[in-house]
Amino acid sequence: MSVIEELGIRAGEAARELAVVTAEAKNNALEEMARALTSRVDEILGANEEDRKAGIENGMSDALLDRLTLSEKRVGEMAQGLRELAAASDPVGEVVEGWRLANGLEIKKVRVPLGVVGIIYEARPNVTVDAAGLCVKSGNAVILRGSSSAINSNRFLSEVIAHAGESAGLPGGCIQLVPLTDRESAKELMRLRKYVDVLIPRGGAGLIRTVVEESTVPVIETGVGNCHTFVDASADLDMAERIVVNAKTHRPGVCNAMETMLVHEAVAAEFLPRVAQELTQLGVELRGCERTQEILQGVKAATEDDWYEEYLDLILAVRVVPSLQEAIRHINTYGSQHSEAIVTSDLDAARRFTAGVDSADVYVNASTRFTDGGQFGLGAEIGISTQKLHARGPMGLRELTSTKFIIYGDGQVRS
Amino acid sequence: MSVIEELGIRAGEAARELAVVTAEAKNNALEEMARALTSRVDEILGANEEDRKAGIENGMSDALLDRLTLSEKRVGEMAQGLRELAAASDPVGEVVEGWRLANGLEIKKVRVPLGVVGIIYEARPNVTVDAAGLCVKSGNAVILRGSSSAINSNRFLSEVIAHAGESAGLPGGCIQLVPLTDRESAKELMRLRKYVDVLIPRGGAGLIRTVVEESTVPVIETGVGNCHTFVDASADLDMAERIVVNAKTHRPGVCNAMETMLVHEAVAAEFLPRVAQELTQLGVELRGCERTQEILQGVKAATEDDWYEEYLDLILAVRVVPSLQEAIRHINTYGSQHSEAIVTSDLDAARRFTAGVDSADVYVNASTRFTDGGQFGLGAEIGISTQKLHARGPMGLRELTSTKFIIYGDGQVRS
Repeated sequence: MSVIEELGIRAGEAARELAVVTAEAKNNALEEMARALTSRVDEILGANEEDRKAGIENGMSDALLDRLTLSEKRVGEMAQGLRELAAASDPVGEVVEGWRLANGLEIKKVRVPLGVVGIIYEARPNVTVDAAGLCVKSGNAVILRGSSSAINSNRFLSEVIAHAGESAGLPGGCIQLVPLTDRESAKELMRLRKYVDVLIPRGGAGLIRTVVEESTVPVIETGVGNCHTFVDASADLDMAERIVVNAKTHRPGVCNAMETMLVHEAVAAEFLPRVAQELTQLGVELRGCERTQEILQGVKAATEDDWYEEYLDLILAVRVVPSLQEAIRHINTYGSQHSEAIVTSDLDAARRFTAGVDSADVYVNASTRFTDGGQFGLGAEIGISTQKLHARGPMGLRELTSTKFIIYGDGQVRS
Repeated sequence: MSVIEELGIRAGEAARELAVVTAEAKNNALEEMARALTSRVDEILGANEEDRKAGIENGMSDALLDRLTLSEKRVGEMAQGLRELAAASDPVGEVVEGWRLANGLEIKKVRVPLGVVGIIYEARPNVTVDAAGLCVKSGNAVILRGSSSAINSNRFLSEVIAHAGESAGLPGGCIQLVPLTDRESAKELMRLRKYVDVLIPRGGAGLIRTVVEESTVPVIETGVGNCHTFVDASADLDMAERIVVNAKTHRPGVCNAMETMLVHEAVAAEFLPRVAQELTQLGVELRGCERTQEILQGVKAATEDDWYEEYLDLILAVRVVPSLQEAIRHINTYGSQHSEAIVTSDLDAARRFTAGVDSADVYVNASTRFTDGGQFGLGAEIGISTQKLHARGPMGLRELTSTKFIIYGDGQVRS
């Protein structure tokens, strides 16, 4: 039996036990895990330093190195995250709905854990703790599969929290890290359908594509955000400027940042020069369609590829469109169904845009940057789903559960 | 471009249009489709006769031939199914929840169609109409892929309803049948992730396994039912007998029929002889564990394989278990997470069984045969999900939808 299969069997057994553990016991365990993190911060930083050294030796980029690096403050934030989960309400056991049939059968649909959740993620070691906390709270056993670049940090963090959880009474095997970081072991995890109920990839587009292609375990696709803002003919242009600048520059490296701006031709000549000036001052490179280039001298041409691109950087594709209809068509053609916004003062345009755009989160007169479990008030977030099955948009604790029907009778048979 | 890809593109375009069609227009179309079926029944039966002839020539079994065969009555039932869908309430547009954030943003989570639904199914041509009706009602474009043995029936039925739907104003391409029945075209459909939002296989275990293995499109696994009834130590044995006999013999060829009976050792000596007599009289073959064989002379031995088997026939595996705990363990080990029942008068046993058994539908003192969308009062059913993502148990119209977040603001940006 392979290492991965052993992990799967152990997780399956743990999940069965964890499913019936009380909320109180899970919350105590989360508190215990938080305490363990803060009390062992020096060792955690030591393990992280090994990963950092290896990263520097291997010529890791500054951005990746920053994501990899832990500090006392970051460890404190992880612990705080666990304490907040302990304080959150437990989704398991919620009666979603229920009714009585004519024959007397009493049916209720009850929220239950998914079972075993696999998380495949890249550099950031905080995912180890955040994802494990969310899974424990929602009654799921978790199999964590991080990247080789963070293996020392991940190994130590997972050991600390798994041990603390077990000490507090959680079944062994609730939190397991895949000790291997080669491609084959990742692929084996993706095909462990017998033991793993869902796989959530957290990382770049390449990772997500691989998981979607290779996995026989059901996958929740997360995170790729090619987000749009459409400045309609009737837009308040001051508001549009604020929203566009926020959506592009507030944090360009995240999935809910805007990547393409669409501008109605009726306001393009007035709006583009003013917003271009501000964006350029903030360091944004513009890539425009022909109409945009006519209005804004010296702007580089956008290619077909640009419309598909998730830059995650201070680059913005700009296109002038003849109509709301064309804006919707553009978004549905090139977008990743994540987050889109319209700036308008026209009620009909708002209604047509929100109905016609096929994305998880559709905004009227607000920045796409709000797409986030915390901002939405859902509490901690395991990711943002860009698929339509099971969950769509920011996923909180509830999205880490399934349901079962429980039916009570007194001898009913079918005739 | 391949035939399959063309179908996908056309379905995607149709889905975008269909998503914003009113309930009234969809209901009119469903009525029109029903009328078309009844008015063209002779031609439908003619097309079906071609399939039947080919089936007989190819030595098709009687059971399969029965599933393939249409009659005026069966066509009438299909039409009636469409009229019932027209009368059902529309799931699209339901505001699932909504709230206002501190910053004034108004969030609502609204039910929307999934988009494009692919159905891969075996012999029964009524699925063509039933599935298309459910998809149209829930605002989804559907790509139907039936088996070669029913190709003439499926082609004619799909043409009749697609044409009727279009005449009534539905966008073209809402209902499409894959004209090919080779394996390669099925596999291509399974990998058409760009255009197909979900794939639902309806058929035997082999078909479902293939789809799960091959598909990159998200799949909802349906239907395989290795269902159990556990007769507890405290069971009312008269009730237990009624439930067991109903669950095994009422319709043995369907997924919610019982395949294994577990009996607590405390009542095995009393219960097994009486229930065995009745089951045997009804033509049921028993396959027992060693303890069962000690109590029931002449019963064939059950092998490890029997515990995994979905017989879909008048065969029952029987095992005597020492405890409730062991019954739960057996079900979670060998079952297919479909439907299980306990017969008991012990409250604690009922609670432990319903909590511990990891299946879509868990019954106390009732037959597993009730697992059905119609029986549950959900209306028509597209299948019974045995996976945990998105939907679990009987799936009705609501399970053919997703949601989107629509957020209204007045210029909010993130700080």
